[in-house]
Amino acid sequence: MNNKIRAWAAAAKSGRLEPFEYDPGPLGPEQVEVAVEHCGICHSDQSMLDNEWGRTQYPFVPGHEIVGTIAAVGAQAKGLKVGMRVGVGWFTGSCMHCRSCIGGEQHLCATTEETIVGRHGGFAERVRTHWAWAFPLPEGLDASAAGPLFCGGITVFSPMVIAGVKPTNRVGVVGIGGLGHMALKFLRAWGCEVTAFTSSAAKHAEALKLGAHHAVNSTDKAALKALRRSLDFIIVTVNVALDWNAYVAALKPKGRLHFVGAVLDPLGVQAFSLIGGQKTIGGSPTGSPATIASMLEFCARHKIAPQVETFPMAKVNDAIEHLRAAKARYRIVLKN
Amino acid sequence: MNNKIRAWAAAAKSGRLEPFEYDPGPLGPEQVEVAVEHCGICHSDQSMLDNEWGRTQYPFVPGHEIVGTIAAVGAQAKGLKVGMRVGVGWFTGSCMHCRSCIGGEQHLCATTEETIVGRHGGFAERVRTHWAWAFPLPEGLDASAAGPLFCGGITVFSPMVIAGVKPTNRVGVVGIGGLGHMALKFLRAWGCEVTAFTSSAAKHAEALKLGAHHAVNSTDKAALKALRRSLDFIIVTVNVALDWNAYVAALKPKGRLHFVGAVLDPLGVQAFSLIGGQKTIGGSPTGSPATIASMLEFCARHKIAPQVETFPMAKVNDAIEHLRAAKARYRIVLKN
Repeated sequence: MNNKIRAWAAAAKSGRLEPFEYDPGPLGPEQVEVAVEHCGICHSDQSMLDNEWGRTQYPFVPGHEIVGTIAAVGAQAKGLKVGMRVGVGWFTGSCMHCRSCIGGEQHLCATTEETIVGRHGGFAERVRTHWAWAFPLPEGLDASAAGPLFCGGITVFSPMVIAGVKPTNRVGVVGIGGLGHMALKFLRAWGCEVTAFTSSAAKHAEALKLGAHHAVNSTDKAALKALRRSLDFIIVTVNVALDWNAYVAALKPKGRLHFVGAVLDPLGVQAFSLIGGQKTIGGSPTGSPATIASMLEFCARHKIAPQVETFPMAKVNDAIEHLRAAKARYRIVLKN
Repeated sequence: MNNKIRAWAAAAKSGRLEPFEYDPGPLGPEQVEVAVEHCGICHSDQSMLDNEWGRTQYPFVPGHEIVGTIAAVGAQAKGLKVGMRVGVGWFTGSCMHCRSCIGGEQHLCATTEETIVGRHGGFAERVRTHWAWAFPLPEGLDASAAGPLFCGGITVFSPMVIAGVKPTNRVGVVGIGGLGHMALKFLRAWGCEVTAFTSSAAKHAEALKLGAHHAVNSTDKAALKALRRSLDFIIVTVNVALDWNAYVAALKPKGRLHFVGAVLDPLGVQAFSLIGGQKTIGGSPTGSPATIASMLEFCARHKIAPQVETFPMAKVNDAIEHLRAAKARYRIVLKN
């Protein structure tokens, strides 16, 4: 039997994706194999393709916002059966026995396996994962749009849980793109008063349609000043440097500025600006399996889905070009 | 009746303190007047004396770590009687009706009255405060050493409450001075494993006596690296710039680096270093009245007192010189 997996891989940094086959070896006892139906494209696929973080191995198969059906189940894999429809995100494994794992925060394990780091991802006909990182889709979620929930979605949903965001809160979302547009939907359904911050005037009206009550230019000093001491929580989804002290000043006492966009510059925040109002700055990576499951339930209950544009998998290079041109509104999904 | 209060004031920036009298006017209906017995000297008295923050008015009467007895009570003042022994700290008033005040976090009120800002402090025979900011001393607290609890003490105690530090945690204290030495005592009694970080090798042995289990050079890169991913909570009491990214790296997942020393330089921390381990950076000013009352109970239960050196009030200039020379071990208290 030919076990090989057909995928799309770049042979070198920033290269075109070309058809590629690899042998995944025997299925691990705790693994499942998923037949990929849809796979979202995340900015980190592009960052990895371009080796921005120095972690990429070529040939490189991107893709970590996967929806598909279980095609094979290892002997020790729990809770999953062949034919179930599941999603898979940034992680495909963790040690399952360290303090973080046994404590239910497997995404904080020091030895996580990442779907597209040192292994091949979801731009493929099949992909493998540890059973704990494959999540059954609840009834009512549209499989063709659900992929982006498993990386972009959980990345903005998890901070709401971590930070204890309350329905009575006034919150902000900085950057209205793949992650930010989902944050607007989540926070609106969560019951909050939501302010969108974007540098694109064209996105103001769209932000309101997506769930924001207000839209503000993210670089408008006067507008930020007018928001002084008004927000409980601000999530930052951009990876550009903004005037973070101005955002800290927009927080109420005990407010939190939370980063999920990997801003590479030092934040430039002074301790003084945190001390007076007892404020915090935080960050987080995707979320735990239990939080992912909660998010899926919440999405089904509130009919929340990422807004996607679909490309056939064979047009993956066009899709990447579309992403690079910053034209995606708001997330691209590839369809096998 | 001559109502004037005799105090010690500087006529100009960084000036010597000289005898000074002022008329405090009629006692407010919600105020009490405290006959000062002891008053600690805090670094912020020195910062204000030197107008480091551009907020000082001269003549300037320092002093905001006050212990004394109630000498007069306004008609609407609650819970206090003439003769009670109380402490007074950085705040002497808040609006009592904003969301922060009515929510029990009066220290976060936007219109707090600060003991030595725009009014006269505790280097005096008497001082006034709103009743909510005068705290009866529980049985068993030594009045002659308790003063520093009301600013330095609560400044390091409150973060333990805010951050939810648990007895099972491993924690760090950066800077073993007036604030840091109290943090060591608190955290040891709290049940934690405590690591002291200090640039002064001479303080290592003292830190262990004060409650630390371990003492580490705060600028030793290799030592910090060895602590990678090991601490749940680090409180920073220094106001010098250190390699904060190295301290963030020393935190466990979900760990918190908490600033109470007013470091003026931008912290230089990258979002990336917070995201992976879901970490936070926080800050806080002193604490709420309810937390101050909890701290006093905790100190009485565990026999915790600041380690003080006592000077007569008339030797206040010698005491300030001692502080400026960084010779205080660990807090100076003036005695009337």
